[in-house]
Amino acid sequence: MSPNTSIDDTIIALATAQGVSAIAVIRLSGKDAIRITQQLFKGKNLEKQPSHTVHLGTIEEHGKIIDEVLVTLFKGPNSFTRENSVEISCHGSPFIVKQIIKAFLNAGVRLAGPGEFTKRAFLNGRFDLAQAEAVADLISSETDNARQAAINQMRGGFSNEIKRLRDELIHFASLIELELDFGEEDVEFAGRKDLADLVHKIMNYLQVLIQSFDEGNVIKNGIPTVIAGRPNAGKSTLLNALLNEEKAIVSDIPGTTRDVIEDEITLGGISFRFMDTAGLRETSDVIEAIGVTRTRDTMKKASLILYLFDLANTTIEEIQAEERELMQLNIPYIKVGNKMDHVQPSIAMYIESQDFTLISASNKTNLNTLKDRILAKFQVSEVRQGDVLVTNLRHYQKLVETNQSLNRVLTGLNSGVTGDFLAMDIRQSLHYLGEITGTITTEDLLENIFSKFCIGK
Amino acid sequence: MSPNTSIDDTIIALATAQGVSAIAVIRLSGKDAIRITQQLFKGKNLEKQPSHTVHLGTIEEHGKIIDEVLVTLFKGPNSFTRENSVEISCHGSPFIVKQIIKAFLNAGVRLAGPGEFTKRAFLNGRFDLAQAEAVADLISSETDNARQAAINQMRGGFSNEIKRLRDELIHFASLIELELDFGEEDVEFAGRKDLADLVHKIMNYLQVLIQSFDEGNVIKNGIPTVIAGRPNAGKSTLLNALLNEEKAIVSDIPGTTRDVIEDEITLGGISFRFMDTAGLRETSDVIEAIGVTRTRDTMKKASLILYLFDLANTTIEEIQAEERELMQLNIPYIKVGNKMDHVQPSIAMYIESQDFTLISASNKTNLNTLKDRILAKFQVSEVRQGDVLVTNLRHYQKLVETNQSLNRVLTGLNSGVTGDFLAMDIRQSLHYLGEITGTITTEDLLENIFSKFCIGK
Repeated sequence: MSPNTSIDDTIIALATAQGVSAIAVIRLSGKDAIRITQQLFKGKNLEKQPSHTVHLGTIEEHGKIIDEVLVTLFKGPNSFTRENSVEISCHGSPFIVKQIIKAFLNAGVRLAGPGEFTKRAFLNGRFDLAQAEAVADLISSETDNARQAAINQMRGGFSNEIKRLRDELIHFASLIELELDFGEEDVEFAGRKDLADLVHKIMNYLQVLIQSFDEGNVIKNGIPTVIAGRPNAGKSTLLNALLNEEKAIVSDIPGTTRDVIEDEITLGGISFRFMDTAGLRETSDVIEAIGVTRTRDTMKKASLILYLFDLANTTIEEIQAEERELMQLNIPYIKVGNKMDHVQPSIAMYIESQDFTLISASNKTNLNTLKDRILAKFQVSEVRQGDVLVTNLRHYQKLVETNQSLNRVLTGLNSGVTGDFLAMDIRQSLHYLGEITGTITTEDLLENIFSKFCIGK
Repeated sequence: MSPNTSIDDTIIALATAQGVSAIAVIRLSGKDAIRITQQLFKGKNLEKQPSHTVHLGTIEEHGKIIDEVLVTLFKGPNSFTRENSVEISCHGSPFIVKQIIKAFLNAGVRLAGPGEFTKRAFLNGRFDLAQAEAVADLISSETDNARQAAINQMRGGFSNEIKRLRDELIHFASLIELELDFGEEDVEFAGRKDLADLVHKIMNYLQVLIQSFDEGNVIKNGIPTVIAGRPNAGKSTLLNALLNEEKAIVSDIPGTTRDVIEDEITLGGISFRFMDTAGLRETSDVIEAIGVTRTRDTMKKASLILYLFDLANTTIEEIQAEERELMQLNIPYIKVGNKMDHVQPSIAMYIESQDFTLISASNKTNLNTLKDRILAKFQVSEVRQGDVLVTNLRHYQKLVETNQSLNRVLTGLNSGVTGDFLAMDIRQSLHYLGEITGTITTEDLLENIFSKFCIGK
């Protein structure tokens, strides 16, 4: 399907979250969106109203009022999808929403699939594929950094630069293909030195993007963190203490509190996902139990381990044994000394000589120090307006693939391969680059991308 | 607080349901709603745009974009609240919603309380109290009839007629109070016969409204129904069969499916709420167990009992014994003969002579016949446009109180009481009538009513 395919049917979906609420917004898009709405709308003649205006009236079917609504008109191409679009703001009753959508289905409108509005926006050239994907990232963003990274990408991000570099590469590709047309005449339209320079330039840019992925991934998905330690070291108390503090910040805005993922904490714009270490907890001796494969696997998935030592109830030998096991995991960890108010006299000197973060989980003492140390483990600086970060796994994979095929171009240039081999490798690189921004797409690829969107977006 | 109190501060709330979705709408209302939005909005100058227009831009704080949004302007008095209002349509991320609301709170806006937008609409004279209450009923409506009854009330309902009748009564009250001013001169400005006629007229109208409450209550709250019967009579199978059929109808509209109350079924625009009869199910002999107080109480709360007989496994004597117990409850019931494909030969003749609704719950045979019989028990006709129905308990209570005090006026007229006693009773009636439409309110009453609304409405 090419980006300019015209899509004739009009689609509809609830665009706001489901549930009883003050208002709900139903969205329509398509050539006939305004005309069909007019059929069910009693009020002004919508077809005669300008774009970006709002009109009070009723939605009626079979002469019966379903609801009083506000209808907002967007005339293509000045709409999200670039098609005629309508937003119907009705009372937030799921029953009413259903009745209104039913009435539109009866009038010949079709239910939208997931992400179909954004897909149309992409197909109609409003933005490229990488930008469209950022819309979904924006909606699912849960931290300030993730939101900023998604907005930056949605508003352009690396798309323009990639398109520009790709255009330059296309220029070389066509010159080389011209050479092939001349066959055995041995002309060289494409300067090999200039081509190598361009390929280097592209690879340098791709390298920056590829390297940003680790940071982007942390920003988008959070850092898997395990709180480990012997039984009764205070793991749950610490998790609750951290959670409660963050929840208090959330709760100062009543009415916007959302379902909290119980074990997710946001620190300095990064979310930390705490993984279940139930297996560890149930065992009587944690360090011994690390040998158990399943437990090891859980620990290995972590990007950070907060290892709690119960300072009120341990010995130097135990601490050293636990730390030896910990080091073997080869995962960043923080040694947290809990119950700092009740340190065993026998270990007090030793503790001081070591790199412990001393806290009291139950008294919530020194939690900020701990948070600072957690953050210091991850050098994620604040994402600023305009910063370009790759947060999307698909983009990352395509960037790596492009890089590999550009590397083949370089190798070819160095070893002096013939034009046709060179052209093949360049064409491959162009293909991967095109897939990032959606210049080159397949219906499968689009299906795969947009099926992950919400319905109504 | 009088209906024209001006409210100076600007309020904000999420107006759509909470959750990840395509879009979310944040609503602001107040004198400064547009001016403050302009402070955070980057795009056109909103203060110079006409009412009922939509503008694309960004919400920014400290020079950082929070989100790309569409802002809709409503200039008072042409808005829901009659104040300047703004609706911000942002990406449906709870995190973004929180950030935007925070930014507005920092800019001096206040979080709205439950129903505060509607309360302002009422205080600013957009509609009366009875209409404002209908907004909440509309949002919580779950059947076509409930929706229609709420819309009718929201668009006027009994309000105008009550206001008209109250004005007539005020006229008489002032005439009688004029008589009192003339003291011992024994003039009679208010014709006693005309007053009696008016009181009769008002009481007749109130009577119609009061009588509509039973029907209105059924429409609004559904009919509590118990499926009863001996163990293994097929109660759960029947409930599931009824539920599945209704769910299938719902599920033809993906994306609008809402949380289903597992045991609620809508038939012919009426919802039937199935009550838990677990107690009945656990006993080995249902009819004997009806003697148990707790079970009796559950049954007594029902407005309808579907009593299931297991025709494959019962005797005439048992059926008769069960029915005798059933009749003693004095609640409408339907005798449902289940397992119609496997009727005991010994009872076949007897069954035919009796008023059984024969079904097979497991094969879903004759369910429509059963539904028709359920509906026939409740003579609720379809609510049509303009039908006036009292569905609100508060209105019902005030109507009954008004009626009682008008009755005292009549008694007084008949027994020839003096003008001052008459005036007192009339004033009491005026008070109750005024409370229905909100001509007379107290802050407590308003608080009580609007605290039941959603935030954002």
